[in-house]
Amino acid sequence: MSLPHTAPARAAASVEPAGPASVTRLLQAIADVGRDAGRGGYSRPVFSTPEMDLRAWFIEQAGRRGLDVHTDANGIIWAWWDTATGVRKDAVATGSHLDSVPGGGAYDGPLGVASALAAVDLLKARNFRPRRPLALTVFPEEEGSRFGVACLGSRLLTGQLNPDKARKLRDPEGNTYADVAAANGQDPRLIGADYTALQQLGMFVELHVEQGRGLVDINRPVAIGSSILGHGRWKLSITGEGNHAGTTLMKDRRDPMVAAAKVMVSIRDTARKYRDARATVGRLQPVPGGTNVIASRVDLWIDVRHPEDPVTAALVEAIGLNARVLAAEEGCTASLGTESLSPTVHFDGGLRDRLREFLPGAPVLDTGAGHDAGVLAAHLPTAMLFVRNPTGISHSPDELVEDGDAEAGARALADCLAGLLGEAVTPG
Amino acid sequence: MSLPHTAPARAAASVEPAGPASVTRLLQAIADVGRDAGRGGYSRPVFSTPEMDLRAWFIEQAGRRGLDVHTDANGIIWAWWDTATGVRKDAVATGSHLDSVPGGGAYDGPLGVASALAAVDLLKARNFRPRRPLALTVFPEEEGSRFGVACLGSRLLTGQLNPDKARKLRDPEGNTYADVAAANGQDPRLIGADYTALQQLGMFVELHVEQGRGLVDINRPVAIGSSILGHGRWKLSITGEGNHAGTTLMKDRRDPMVAAAKVMVSIRDTARKYRDARATVGRLQPVPGGTNVIASRVDLWIDVRHPEDPVTAALVEAIGLNARVLAAEEGCTASLGTESLSPTVHFDGGLRDRLREFLPGAPVLDTGAGHDAGVLAAHLPTAMLFVRNPTGISHSPDELVEDGDAEAGARALADCLAGLLGEAVTPG
Repeated sequence: MSLPHTAPARAAASVEPAGPASVTRLLQAIADVGRDAGRGGYSRPVFSTPEMDLRAWFIEQAGRRGLDVHTDANGIIWAWWDTATGVRKDAVATGSHLDSVPGGGAYDGPLGVASALAAVDLLKARNFRPRRPLALTVFPEEEGSRFGVACLGSRLLTGQLNPDKARKLRDPEGNTYADVAAANGQDPRLIGADYTALQQLGMFVELHVEQGRGLVDINRPVAIGSSILGHGRWKLSITGEGNHAGTTLMKDRRDPMVAAAKVMVSIRDTARKYRDARATVGRLQPVPGGTNVIASRVDLWIDVRHPEDPVTAALVEAIGLNARVLAAEEGCTASLGTESLSPTVHFDGGLRDRLREFLPGAPVLDTGAGHDAGVLAAHLPTAMLFVRNPTGISHSPDELVEDGDAEAGARALADCLAGLLGEAVTPG
Repeated sequence: MSLPHTAPARAAASVEPAGPASVTRLLQAIADVGRDAGRGGYSRPVFSTPEMDLRAWFIEQAGRRGLDVHTDANGIIWAWWDTATGVRKDAVATGSHLDSVPGGGAYDGPLGVASALAAVDLLKARNFRPRRPLALTVFPEEEGSRFGVACLGSRLLTGQLNPDKARKLRDPEGNTYADVAAANGQDPRLIGADYTALQQLGMFVELHVEQGRGLVDINRPVAIGSSILGHGRWKLSITGEGNHAGTTLMKDRRDPMVAAAKVMVSIRDTARKYRDARATVGRLQPVPGGTNVIASRVDLWIDVRHPEDPVTAALVEAIGLNARVLAAEEGCTASLGTESLSPTVHFDGGLRDRLREFLPGAPVLDTGAGHDAGVLAAHLPTAMLFVRNPTGISHSPDELVEDGDAEAGARALADCLAGLLGEAVTPG
């Protein structure tokens, strides 16, 4: 199930000074990979040249640190720091992702990956000898911005996503996941649940830039995560009648764009009625999409989140009902389908309490953003660390982490890993 | 300024029976070029493989008929049937375009081109000898669906579009007109007004599928055009604040998609207040366009048409004002820019009356659709013939012309050309 790496084909990093690398220096080395001149920020979709360059960079960095690196059939990169026994059991895993949303920030994903590398350096500088194995991980398609399913890699690994369904997922250009994976050296026939890999792991800790203002408001650099809001993605298709924009009288139209517009206002108004709910339309495609053409169909994607899963369900039901009524007003029809759905995740209480021992006084915060840690939480104890984002903005070029906070995050991660790895492996 | 064609590089047509080709048979030969499996119908953007294949097909067809073919620097194809003198002056030109909107019908453009070829066959079968030269023409980018400016070729030819501006136009992938033209064998340095070519022409007649229900309602196959509604395209950009869809509370948002939705409803409601007005949003792009990202900006394109130009101007002003107010309600800003603007065109009265002599009893109808004939009308007498479309639908796979009507259209065009070409060239 794994492809060994001997020498990386492409490495984005240039020459670095000797000695332990800081997080800031690591991120600097990839600061030019995947910049998006049009949108600003970075566009690093999974299996794109920038994302493949970042993988090569990570593999090269892991190799420099003497870690044993391989990419598995699901496209997840594993970099092992083994114990003297070489037994991979009850391991601590830490890492994040390198793919981005279109026009995203520099930290969402790469901060966790770079901090994992920096934490290894810090532990080695302390001459630390782990009593459990450590695995650094890079998960593909965490954002779901290419194939529409967030946390694709961790969902495949844990069996939450049917491999047949995954192979048929299409990107906006119409390419299937199977074809794109194959073109990037993966064998799409081998994707799917990998319980052997999962059974090697004892716990997973993901460090991530905070995607809100929780730490800014309390003026602290690092927090421990408590939970992830339940969230999902729904696709709404509104069908009307395509026609010529110049020759079709206003009264004769069945224009799905007008229906979609009414629905979008309704989605926002409905979400406002539910305390703590968030509903967003960030992606919309008119078909065929010409300036002088009344669209025949409009597809739009709705992102809905709420801490209580029954409320999410009620909100989506209300959105669907309103959409059908508003579409009918315009002589159109509406159909709503679920693309993904993740219930609210409460991270393991025992692991969280131990991180609080290693980071005395650190605040505990929840998040509205989904993460691979949320997917893995159903299979093993998981935890998260959040690093302060002074703008509170994420999925945008305005996302920010100050250098001092990035280093504080890596030290916090190293302290947690030292605590967790210093314990003996459970016998058995 | 012209590229001679000796042998076409790519020809879409296969073997055809000998003798004059019917319009139906000509269209049959290109029925598989540029089909759009996703949208249905045809996608034949200018300079795409399908559009280049159609050009090669036309050049091959014109060559078979002994016409003298060349493509000029603006990408317009000219196929000349010269008189015995070889003098190109006071010529009659007829033709249309081969590019399509995304997911368009089979007739919008190609019907006029195929009817021009069929009309030549009909005239030759009658042993007709023209006393004036005839030019069959194919104009590129009539739809403006690739570079955003409708009637690009005729606007360049007539000097209505600045060549510097044209060279910098970009398609949705960001490629400039200059680069795409160069990649397709054109020299973009040479584009622009070509008064030598214009001075060869005495008049222009364009046959086109009707894009409304005028002929269906009166149960007639062919009409003579009277006028083209004034129309234009405006781009509206609404700027808000990009952020994470999960972590940003509803109350903290400045979401340009919600503002755009309100504006789209307002555009429709405003257009309904003006009798005979049409306003359409058929194209919209959220930036960055991710499902889990609140957009930072939304670009949308508005197509507005009205028979009276001051009403068009008033309508667009109202749309812009409403957009600014509605955007401000959402904490966003809106800016509206003109992409193109064509006043109402009344076709030459003298030429129209002569076509009525050649087609006794033919009805006279106006149209809401723009055409190269509308652009050329400012420079020489132009006229149009419309052929019945039983669905009344255009810019859609549902666009239709029945075979009998297509042949009736070609005969009507041949009759008009016979009348116009049978007259002596004006001395001078």
